[in-house]
Amino acid sequence: QSSVTLYGRVNTTVERQKIGDDSRTVMQNNSSRIGFKGVEDLGGGLKAGFQLEAGFGSDDGSGPLNFSRQSEVNLSGGFGMLRLGNFTPESYFATADYVSMHNHDTGTSSDALYYDPVWTPLQRAAVPNKIAYRTPSLGGFTLEGAVSLHEQTTGGKNGYDLAANYNMGPLALGAGYSQIDSDKQLGLRAAYTIGQFTLGGYYQRNDEDLRGTRNNFRLAGMYAMGASELHLNFGRAAKWSNVADSSANQWTVGYNYNLSKRTKAYAFYTKVDNKAGAAYMTDAAGVDFSSFAVGVRHNF
Amino acid sequence: QSSVTLYGRVNTTVERQKIGDDSRTVMQNNSSRIGFKGVEDLGGGLKAGFQLEAGFGSDDGSGPLNFSRQSEVNLSGGFGMLRLGNFTPESYFATADYVSMHNHDTGTSSDALYYDPVWTPLQRAAVPNKIAYRTPSLGGFTLEGAVSLHEQTTGGKNGYDLAANYNMGPLALGAGYSQIDSDKQLGLRAAYTIGQFTLGGYYQRNDEDLRGTRNNFRLAGMYAMGASELHLNFGRAAKWSNVADSSANQWTVGYNYNLSKRTKAYAFYTKVDNKAGAAYMTDAAGVDFSSFAVGVRHNF
Amino acid sequence: QSSVTLYGRVNTTVERQKIGDDSRTVMQNNSSRIGFKGVEDLGGGLKAGFQLEAGFGSDDGSGPLNFSRQSEVNLSGGFGMLRLGNFTPESYFATADYVSMHNHDTGTSSDALYYDPVWTPLQRAAVPNKIAYRTPSLGGFTLEGAVSLHEQTTGGKNGYDLAANYNMGPLALGAGYSQIDSDKQLGLRAAYTIGQFTLGGYYQRNDEDLRGTRNNFRLAGMYAMGASELHLNFGRAAKWSNVADSSANQWTVGYNYNLSKRTKAYAFYTKVDNKAGAAYMTDAAGVDFSSFAVGVRHNF
Repeated sequence: QSSVTLYGRVNTTVERQKIGDDSRTVMQNNSSRIGFKGVEDLGGGLKAGFQLEAGFGSDDGSGPLNFSRQSEVNLSGGFGMLRLGNFTPESYFATADYVSMHNHDTGTSSDALYYDPVWTPLQRAAVPNKIAYRTPSLGGFTLEGAVSLHEQTTGGKNGYDLAANYNMGPLALGAGYSQIDSDKQLGLRAAYTIGQFTLGGYYQRNDEDLRGTRNNFRLAGMYAMGASELHLNFGRAAKWSNVADSSANQWTVGYNYNLSKRTKAYAFYTKVDNKAGAAYMTDAAGVDFSSFAVGVRHNF
Repeated sequence: QSSVTLYGRVNTTVERQKIGDDSRTVMQNNSSRIGFKGVEDLGGGLKAGFQLEAGFGSDDGSGPLNFSRQSEVNLSGGFGMLRLGNFTPESYFATADYVSMHNHDTGTSSDALYYDPVWTPLQRAAVPNKIAYRTPSLGGFTLEGAVSLHEQTTGGKNGYDLAANYNMGPLALGAGYSQIDSDKQLGLRAAYTIGQFTLGGYYQRNDEDLRGTRNNFRLAGMYAMGASELHLNFGRAAKWSNVADSSANQWTVGYNYNLSKRTKAYAFYTKVDNKAGAAYMTDAAGVDFSSFAVGVRHNF
Repeated sequence: QSSVTLYGRVNTTVERQKIGDDSRTVMQNNSSRIGFKGVEDLGGGLKAGFQLEAGFGSDDGSGPLNFSRQSEVNLSGGFGMLRLGNFTPESYFATADYVSMHNHDTGTSSDALYYDPVWTPLQRAAVPNKIAYRTPSLGGFTLEGAVSLHEQTTGGKNGYDLAANYNMGPLALGAGYSQIDSDKQLGLRAAYTIGQFTLGGYYQRNDEDLRGTRNNFRLAGMYAMGASELHLNFGRAAKWSNVADSSANQWTVGYNYNLSKRTKAYAFYTKVDNKAGAAYMTDAAGVDFSSFAVGVRHNF
């Protein structure tokens, strides 16, 4: 009677982490998750679908389990797709996530500098109470807009999200925009594949009431050779115009060995350099972070 | 080695709700759930079964997930069925739930007036520590009795539940009774299908130590035409004999369009009118509630 | 795309329990659980696997669900198996669990006297942040070692676990050792099957800074006859050398009727006798515990 796909990812590393001057050896969860999804064909080109996804700590099994990663029901057809519930901003998938190729933007080497005022304040928990509409693909071009309801009787502010993707063979372009009240961000992304090389990058512009404006960019490269992948990426967040000394750099070098399409063993080194007024990754102003990691990612 | 059925319901509406004089637009979860169940044939007509069911917020993915909706192991055969664990009172399924046809008694248009002293104090979380026995069907008639253990060394009170169902072709009758200490309720229900019409209703009598007695009834009608269903229901809870001005009315008009057996798009308007001493739905004495809702329900 | 096995156990009893002089009737959960696991063949004898397991209360559906029972990703091949995450100590499976045959060491008749300083302080929640290596089977002999990372920058102590198993036809031997800081335990186990009889036992030696040393042993026997099993086991924990009057006895007699390989109906009586300075099972010094239980265990 049912056709549910059960899927997930267990992604665990052993890391030597340095926060400021303190070092420790830890087992690190890298956004492990389990989910349930399905699509029902309603006839006439119309489909109904759902997706429920829970995160968990693969290092200690910690929860509690809930569907705050994704909780969606949708209807789709020739008109596009209508989505209701809780899900990750498409502006993020169109920009920062797209070029975070070495470990799916998870764990300690995830992009610490990308900042979405609608999303990040909730520690990148998906934004709830969302109504989204996605256009059908028009020659490789899709557009998606979403509103996240504030649900207050007075005073709340809705969150807005807009994303565009355009795929032209080896070149793929994306753009994202989000806004809540007068805080907003715009991102532009490009990725190009030439043989075994993939090069990608994005530029992000933030504009907020309190902290002012900020420029943030990232460049990422991958070289694939058989089962092996070499990765290098570098990001720089310039200072918030109203926050002194608030710039930071992040760079990561990684190596993946694909044991199969579902399973890889991998290693990386990542470093975040915070200026005196920046607290990326560490939540402590001026404190740097670095980690050397070895691990396994298994998709099911 | 295993034969588990994974099932669930994602039921999400966008609603314009009015509580007293305040209005707001919200995304509303309507008792979304996910569950696991199975039956094992033990031979000789004997079967073992289990069912585990968790609720979640489809609007925001909220949890935490647990099996407080249902957590049951059972044995069944020619003798009937023996059930152990945590599950919804059968007295409710036999009465209020049976005639709440337009949206499965979920969300803001659920029956706000039905009251079970064993169950409702726990916000309709299922009643734990329950041992139940269900008779086999005797010419369309089944009876089920349950006791919910208080688990105290002194002073606790067990909860009791009794339900009867009798199906005679187009006419279906049900009755429910529950009691804890000296608080009790009795419900009687009838439903009749004539062609495209289904008419149903129940009458409930409450009797409690503090609030005294109360009469509550509901009438519900459905008209089905192809994929469309028109629904109308009206309920009235008379005053508790010891609580001044405690009567209330609730009515709902709804339209369902069945995209398939599993998926419907729907809309409804529902209203609860509380007298000065009644707080149904709003938990605030004398404050009314209404909502206009549009949504999608997808079963999997 | 996926090959996940969904498995679990619903194990519920109704018990008459006596704690000190107070009696009560309860519905008891016996380590009910639900899990997801899978193995991927990577070719060349190499495999990747995962296992995620959550406990829940079958009596009331209580949670919250999380994977604190097990959260593991592993790689295995001719070299043995490498495991990362959170899982039950193998030293326990090799000793106390192996001979707890009547109800899988769950519920009120579980082994109250076995004590692992790495594991028990966490109420037998599995030990997190664990890296383990298991040898391949060498003529029936396997060895597994694990370290549980403390993850502190200063002052923490890793937990260590070592287990050996040797199966020689009807005779099966096992040993377990664990240590954290200067607290340690060593266990030795044997089990022998002769026709319908299985006899097993283990001896455990504890050595700790504060409480000193302790000897603990258990003997367990099973007689199987068709679908029926008769069980008897007895354990005795001698006093901790530095804790006055801290010895205790536990004995259990049980009867299982296997309705199938997956489902049994069963009954047992269990008793823990604590001396004035012992608090096994009851967490109250000198207070005894006993229970008569009837129930159903269903695996899926």
